[in-house]
Amino acid sequence: MTINETLTTEAGWIARGGTPVTPRTGRLRPLGLREVRLRDGFWQRRQQTNRDNSLAHIEQWLEKAGWLGNFDAAVTGDLPAARRGREFADTEVYKLLEALAWEHGRTGDEEIDRCFRSIAARVIAAQEPDGYLNTNYGRPGQAPRYSDLEWGHELYSFGYLIHAGIARARTAGEEELFAAAVRAADHVCDMFGPGGIEAFCGHAEIEMALVELYRLTGVRRYLDQAKLFVDRHGHGTLADIEFGRSYFQDDIPVRDADVFRGHAVRAVYLAAGAVDVAVETGDADLLAAVTRQWRNTVAKRTYITGGMGSRHQDEAFGDDFVLPPDRSYSETCAGVGSVLLAWRLLLAQGDLRYAELIERTLFNVIATSPADDGTRFFYTNTLHQRTVGAEPPSDVQVPRAASNLRAPWFDVSCCPTNLARTFASLAAYVATSDDDGVQIHQYTAASIDTVLPDGREIGLEIDTEYPADGRIAIRITRAPETPWTLSLRVPDWAAGATLDGLAISRGLVQLRRRFTAGETLVLDLPVRPRLIAGDDRIDAVRGAAAVQRGPVVYCLESVDVPVGVPFDSLHLDPDTEPADRDGTVVVTCRTTPPAKLDWPYRPLTEAPGDGVPLEVALHPYHRWARRGPSTMRVWIPLTPER
Amino acid sequence: MTINETLTTEAGWIARGGTPVTPRTGRLRPLGLREVRLRDGFWQRRQQTNRDNSLAHIEQWLEKAGWLGNFDAAVTGDLPAARRGREFADTEVYKLLEALAWEHGRTGDEEIDRCFRSIAARVIAAQEPDGYLNTNYGRPGQAPRYSDLEWGHELYSFGYLIHAGIARARTAGEEELFAAAVRAADHVCDMFGPGGIEAFCGHAEIEMALVELYRLTGVRRYLDQAKLFVDRHGHGTLADIEFGRSYFQDDIPVRDADVFRGHAVRAVYLAAGAVDVAVETGDADLLAAVTRQWRNTVAKRTYITGGMGSRHQDEAFGDDFVLPPDRSYSETCAGVGSVLLAWRLLLAQGDLRYAELIERTLFNVIATSPADDGTRFFYTNTLHQRTVGAEPPSDVQVPRAASNLRAPWFDVSCCPTNLARTFASLAAYVATSDDDGVQIHQYTAASIDTVLPDGREIGLEIDTEYPADGRIAIRITRAPETPWTLSLRVPDWAAGATLDGLAISRGLVQLRRRFTAGETLVLDLPVRPRLIAGDDRIDAVRGAAAVQRGPVVYCLESVDVPVGVPFDSLHLDPDTEPADRDGTVVVTCRTTPPAKLDWPYRPLTEAPGDGVPLEVALHPYHRWARRGPSTMRVWIPLTPER
Repeated sequence: MTINETLTTEAGWIARGGTPVTPRTGRLRPLGLREVRLRDGFWQRRQQTNRDNSLAHIEQWLEKAGWLGNFDAAVTGDLPAARRGREFADTEVYKLLEALAWEHGRTGDEEIDRCFRSIAARVIAAQEPDGYLNTNYGRPGQAPRYSDLEWGHELYSFGYLIHAGIARARTAGEEELFAAAVRAADHVCDMFGPGGIEAFCGHAEIEMALVELYRLTGVRRYLDQAKLFVDRHGHGTLADIEFGRSYFQDDIPVRDADVFRGHAVRAVYLAAGAVDVAVETGDADLLAAVTRQWRNTVAKRTYITGGMGSRHQDEAFGDDFVLPPDRSYSETCAGVGSVLLAWRLLLAQGDLRYAELIERTLFNVIATSPADDGTRFFYTNTLHQRTVGAEPPSDVQVPRAASNLRAPWFDVSCCPTNLARTFASLAAYVATSDDDGVQIHQYTAASIDTVLPDGREIGLEIDTEYPADGRIAIRITRAPETPWTLSLRVPDWAAGATLDGLAISRGLVQLRRRFTAGETLVLDLPVRPRLIAGDDRIDAVRGAAAVQRGPVVYCLESVDVPVGVPFDSLHLDPDTEPADRDGTVVVTCRTTPPAKLDWPYRPLTEAPGDGVPLEVALHPYHRWARRGPSTMRVWIPLTPER
Repeated sequence: MTINETLTTEAGWIARGGTPVTPRTGRLRPLGLREVRLRDGFWQRRQQTNRDNSLAHIEQWLEKAGWLGNFDAAVTGDLPAARRGREFADTEVYKLLEALAWEHGRTGDEEIDRCFRSIAARVIAAQEPDGYLNTNYGRPGQAPRYSDLEWGHELYSFGYLIHAGIARARTAGEEELFAAAVRAADHVCDMFGPGGIEAFCGHAEIEMALVELYRLTGVRRYLDQAKLFVDRHGHGTLADIEFGRSYFQDDIPVRDADVFRGHAVRAVYLAAGAVDVAVETGDADLLAAVTRQWRNTVAKRTYITGGMGSRHQDEAFGDDFVLPPDRSYSETCAGVGSVLLAWRLLLAQGDLRYAELIERTLFNVIATSPADDGTRFFYTNTLHQRTVGAEPPSDVQVPRAASNLRAPWFDVSCCPTNLARTFASLAAYVATSDDDGVQIHQYTAASIDTVLPDGREIGLEIDTEYPADGRIAIRITRAPETPWTLSLRVPDWAAGATLDGLAISRGLVQLRRRFTAGETLVLDLPVRPRLIAGDDRIDAVRGAAAVQRGPVVYCLESVDVPVGVPFDSLHLDPDTEPADRDGTVVVTCRTTPPAKLDWPYRPLTEAPGDGVPLEVALHPYHRWARRGPSTMRVWIPLTPER
């Protein structure tokens, strides 16, 4: 099939606005970015900020930092002298292109389209005749191609290029960047296929990209290559490093591992690629292996926010139950990767808990990172800020994890671009379809219009201020004459949920019947605040509680504590339920003045005194530090046992 | 004064066995390594293992790893091709020389003396005519001298060379290595003195060395240079790095800081050098600043073991109360540095809490690191081991912090040599004198023979199995006719202590009277095990307790838990006192089977069930992993509140 033919077969997707992940088989089918349109609500506002501010902000920084200029310098022969940024700087340009492609796909926005074309042209010009494209390798004075698979990020970089090309193909049918992506993929298969270099990239990403390219083109070679890369992990192929081979998942074969480990972004990206391979090759064992790892990771290595990765040193998962709030790395990109993975598992298996983790991660990691105006970002997402930080100036690029406040740009600036492509394609995660109907996974104001495989047209309009409010009105706007199934997810926390006033149990609610255009269903999810305890194997949250309201994790910020009350003196009274006053959560604390200590250890029997009661307001964790620098904690110590 | 004259004036120290730190002023005076001799007991056994096994083990590894050969290669012109090891590899040779010097000083051991001479000759041969000595810099193909003050460790390396030279001068009067050290110090002063490079070394150490050289030689230039180095910290002189300038204490001037921060070893080394400068220049403000920092650090940034530094990423102090047991870095060298610092403060001020922290650090960090045979070492000292590790083979050099068991040698092998010089000079920390008598700071079997400044001769013999047993017999072996003061430290944990059967209060006990040779005092410190709680601002130990018996912290090891009882199911019953059965500590636990979880967070009201009672034996933390790999925890969760 030629590229033109491929793009023609994608024409169906183009009309539907494209979508990032299109498995050829599986329990559920994705919808396109024009089949689900976000309407005024929590996520639409963030998507609009991404469109209005973040995309231009990112483009400006890519110019200013010289990472876009690297491609021009490749053409003019000014590399390596003119090279700027880290070894993976090219990928931020590709991720911006992917974000622009989705944004244009969902809206047809011409300004976005022009921006895409202009950047894509600069990228394409830098590609070498054999398909290789990387501004950091292979020229005189640069390291040779593929000389540093551990840290070089070359295949990782190709992965993002391919994703950008696919996004453009699926949303515009435009062939130039897609053709460059195909040339790159062919080059990768030539170099790393049978008889080639028997290794893989120290940062997984190419696996997902190659499978998606197979989905788009039907060219089996890409799927085979992705499978080779997945299977090559875990045999000690890459060099040992100080962090150990688990850092890039070269310690245990994917099929044999029980839990995610090593660098968190690498781990979830590899797992997502492995799911893609498993689904397309019908490899039930591989799918079962990743599912097992996901379950163990969610049960033992995930923060209450959905955040993954607790180690600063190597941006890695800690051991089971090593989840200290104050050293939560919880990289924004790991949150994005966790959504990418859970989405693939959801499409394959239909299990609600994947949607539940996606919701948790969206509201508590993805929504937390960007500033209100979309021009500053958290790279890491701590759950406990002990000192009041200072916001970095808006023109300064900062080390990735050093800032404890949102920063405009980072030396390693993967998170802003990863968020941009996520927000632009966010509608894809709201709902799916199968042969018999539509499944709603995420509750947010949206309109859904889709056609089932048998031609039945279904239209829904969701109105809600969720998660601030638990009332979700679902109006049927188009419905076939025959019965079909509307599936609703009732979250695990939503005990007491009702549908049209009738009590429903948690889990999957399937309504199979005829619906009438114009009728409205009202789902009510009780979002009252609840005190949450952690498994006491999580050392750092023992004797403390968090507050969750609906899917949203709350936090205590110093700006909400009366002047004169030391932040560390606040202890939550476990016997008083948190109150919900028009959406503001109020908890009852006792203030025990911090001890003046020479030494912070004392006989157990010498307990501190009773405290003074005090009511304190909590706000959603994703809103923290939006009112200026503060100290903050998600887990609040309980008043000590007497 | 010539070098020969200097060594002559040191003759007094040579007879007394030398001592590492000899302030010209201060509250207390150090004793020499022949004035305090360890006798059969806890520390003597470790000192003997150091002599019998560790010193040879270190020498063999220095040869095998090529770090000693670097000096030969410098002479034969084979650098940089033949260079082995990290940029600071030279220093391990210097620290071995210092250890050998103290060992020979205290015993006159001829084999040790030969070993010293042989290694020293190879080092001295590599020194360049202008006094510069470093096998990693300045030759064609190497980085230029002083081109990387942030990471190069050149002055740090000179510091250890100077310390080795001083140790030799104070114990043998041998002039060759001392002369090399003086040439190096002169070179440093020429290069970094007034009008020279206005910077300092990214790793403090030279400051202590230069002051000690001033103490030995009386040459003011060395003291002035040390003061310059101390004062140059904190003004943003060194380049900013990802860890921030606090990493090498270049964020805040020493006089202005309130607490230790950044890389823990660098922080305590700099503080020790600053105390030295303050004492010799009579700078009360500087001494007060370091004292303030020490107090805040001990109150808020120190593990119950005395360990310092909780961050793996940058081997650094965390924020106040960030002391997670499972990510305790607590580097062995930071423990050594903490002892060096507290000892200088103790000599300057006489405050017992310095001796108390030294004791805690010796028994719970320094004693923990080496294996029983002295040929394997912990680099980091975790307080919570969650997975059973595998002991590295005896012929393999491992990454510094990767091993969770004692390893024979490390890529960065600072700890084994730092321990070696500490064990060889350990007697120095036992006691001091002043004009009116002797102060005993550390209780261990020892004989003390010293002469007060007015010529009065005092002899003591301490017999004890402390800390296994709290009975300490102090026999007077020589006493003047006139009254003098014997000062004893009664530790803060020792409520109920008695002296000759009479109750005494905690703190300083001063006995001023005539003593008779042959009389024996019996101090009894009740070492019964106690449950200890942490300040609840230390997240990770909230709702948990540790057990301390005397100065020794205990731990729970999986090898002591009955087969079939999951280690993580054990919860300490806070209402049952630990029992002491002939030195074995037994605690009452309840076993709550770990929950089978999909998600490790639950409503606070859904508490886990009651457990089954079980008695479990604890052992001293310093003995952990001596019976093979195990899981371990110092802080044991309490049975949850009902």
